Amino acid sequence: MLNCSVITIGDELLIGQVIDTNSAWIAQQLNKAGIAVSRRVAVGDKWDDIWHALDEESKQADVILITGGLGPTADDITKPLLCKYFNGNMIVSDAALENVKYLFEKVFKRAITERNLKQAEVPDTCTVINNKRGTAPGMWFEKSGKVFVSMPGVPHEMKGMMENDVIPLLIQKFKVAQILHRTLMTFGIGESMLADLVEELENALPSYIKLAYLPNYGMVRLRLTAISEKDNKLDKELDEIFYRLQEKVKPYLVTNLDEKMEEVVGKILTRKQKKLCTAESCTGGYIAHLLTSIPGSSIFYDGSIVSYSYKAKEDLLAVNERSLIENGAVSEEIVLQMAKGALAKIGSDYTIAVSGIMGPGGGTPEKPTGTVWMAAGNREKLVTRKMHFRYERSINIQLTAVQALNLLREVLVEMGENE
Amino acid sequence: MLNCSVITIGDELLIGQVIDTNSAWIAQQLNKAGIAVSRRVAVGDKWDDIWHALDEESKQADVILITGGLGPTADDITKPLLCKYFNGNMIVSDAALENVKYLFEKVFKRAITERNLKQAEVPDTCTVINNKRGTAPGMWFEKSGKVFVSMPGVPHEMKGMMENDVIPLLIQKFKVAQILHRTLMTFGIGESMLADLVEELENALPSYIKLAYLPNYGMVRLRLTAISEKDNKLDKELDEIFYRLQEKVKPYLVTNLDEKMEEVVGKILTRKQKKLCTAESCTGGYIAHLLTSIPGSSIFYDGSIVSYSYKAKEDLLAVNERSLIENGAVSEEIVLQMAKGALAKIGSDYTIAVSGIMGPGGGTPEKPTGTVWMAAGNREKLVTRKMHFRYERSINIQLTAVQALNLLREVLVEMGENE
Repeated sequence: MLNCSVITIGDELLIGQVIDTNSAWIAQQLNKAGIAVSRRVAVGDKWDDIWHALDEESKQADVILITGGLGPTADDITKPLLCKYFNGNMIVSDAALENVKYLFEKVFKRAITERNLKQAEVPDTCTVINNKRGTAPGMWFEKSGKVFVSMPGVPHEMKGMMENDVIPLLIQKFKVAQILHRTLMTFGIGESMLADLVEELENALPSYIKLAYLPNYGMVRLRLTAISEKDNKLDKELDEIFYRLQEKVKPYLVTNLDEKMEEVVGKILTRKQKKLCTAESCTGGYIAHLLTSIPGSSIFYDGSIVSYSYKAKEDLLAVNERSLIENGAVSEEIVLQMAKGALAKIGSDYTIAVSGIMGPGGGTPEKPTGTVWMAAGNREKLVTRKMHFRYERSINIQLTAVQALNLLREVLVEMGENE
Repeated sequence: MLNCSVITIGDELLIGQVIDTNSAWIAQQLNKAGIAVSRRVAVGDKWDDIWHALDEESKQADVILITGGLGPTADDITKPLLCKYFNGNMIVSDAALENVKYLFEKVFKRAITERNLKQAEVPDTCTVINNKRGTAPGMWFEKSGKVFVSMPGVPHEMKGMMENDVIPLLIQKFKVAQILHRTLMTFGIGESMLADLVEELENALPSYIKLAYLPNYGMVRLRLTAISEKDNKLDKELDEIFYRLQEKVKPYLVTNLDEKMEEVVGKILTRKQKKLCTAESCTGGYIAHLLTSIPGSSIFYDGSIVSYSYKAKEDLLAVNERSLIENGAVSEEIVLQMAKGALAKIGSDYTIAVSGIMGPGGGTPEKPTGTVWMAAGNREKLVTRKMHFRYERSINIQLTAVQALNLLREVLVEMGENE
């Protein structure tokens, strides 16, 4: 299997100023395409360290992907270094120059400076990879049978280049094996219990089909991966095993597609031409954000009332002031009132309401940090649930959102909307 | 200067299943303590790869911090590997055993299994570091003047050990250098133009002070870093240069602290005891999410009306139906009506309203995908702005949110709320 090393360059990675999300994304995409990542290395904007990393990684990997250090400023030394490393001379790339000019004239609508034009310079020993989203071109080098690709560190620029050029070119150049995936999502069961459920099936898998457990926020995805040189029967064999896998985990099965919880909910609603609204306190708009991240979500989603303050709960959702004082905002009574208020004010068919304490502060002995009440349903029936999360604020918010979406999903299934 | 390498171990890092947040946190803490991180390496749960990483990193670094691979299951091979690497024999650590028993009896309140007790075994060539938050003990090894510390990958366990033991012990053992940072954020100016503005200052920097450019979503951060052996004058010298840097970029300066746009806005509002609400269409709750991700944001934030449908705009924000039909939802008229509606319904002092087409579909020749109208202000004054973004949906949403928050910031500054 083709073996890749990822080098990320930038002092900001070594002082912890930014969290490296590029590496995870790159690893995901390469794995999907049948290319394994064996190592990831981060180094600073230092000549010797970058040079050394190139030497070291190319000893072990077939492909070395490099991100970062391509900006137009003095701290970005990757391009001159690559020029020297691959024994080149700096020349102006016509394609890159045209791209820089196009971006400044038509998109940024700003005057070009000397420095911007310099972005179009590349070593003459590379093949330029066009950057449709920024001025720094990508560079593809080959040396002793190894491929080195340098890309900008700006995530959406790197992503565009990977999707449009780098991965297709790698697949074309190296005979990448055929990789097929089937993914399902379960909810409400832990990794080890799931492993017990599917043990027999897992042990009987042929050597070229692997099962992976991908736990994430209370959901566990099971992914079957088959690797082989072009084999027409593989697809059918995988389908059969996948069908049996679904049977094994049936009580916990959410979807047999590689999709998110909000997509599952959105699809059910869309199919039944029902609409959803949300009333969010502790999640502060995050559920709305997940739903509206789906293109075309206006088909099933009306909107949200994010009632962060007591006053907003009263004014926007008609929550009763006395109930708030008697029960506190984090209570079954209040999420029910929030749900009813949202249905009344927004007029959708279904709703989700959440109220909780996400931390770090705000907890009490009776309601410790992480306590959440949620409600989901329609005008006829609202189901409530109390949960307790014990992580940091950002993770508590994400867990609450996914759990609340799942509560609605359960209600929809129970009401037969899933048929 | 003391030089550290961080090795993270785990297959999940190489298939992109988890984003590595440990490395950034470790780097932050070490830098604060005056220890530089020169490299970060991620490898899978493979014997040869881990062994090779230990060999390689110890060639260059004085301290090698290792996280992950210490769990109780079969795929966690780090502990036996370290035992062999440091020529030890596995023994039961009394301190670790006591800790495991204490955690199960008093904290988890569950029966101990054979597997759990095995967690108390360590190589006899290490010094045990107590893990107050979990069962896997930390291990401190020394070899040829280099220090190796192995810690669990679970973030809060690793963090506890770093803060309580590892950093204090490193400071005690090595003579640690002083590392100082100053960071500012600019808005509305590209990296290249910024570089031209500060060129003179940058060229005149002493060798022990570096300037870095960190661009992200229309903002560029500038960071000064100074390194020296304990020198009392350095702090003052850095302050002086930082002051001059701020003067150079003054028209674009958002903050002279390392903070996010929503934090800048939140601080201004908090200081003036003013409250904010939002009316979001195309960002679908993302602005609310950014604001409510700040702990304690209820001090300055009331909530949001996420009016995704025409009907929600009319019902929740009292947007005029005829205006919607005449102007379309993405128009100056509608964001003004949304802003006024939010102020009237929620009763906050300030508001932000956005409406746009985030893609992939939905564009027209007059209003192409990426067109956004935004408004910000209070009852006396609302400022509008039209923008056009040309990225994928998720990035358009993020850019719109940051631009809208910045528009409010500009309004707040103009109204003297920043004084």
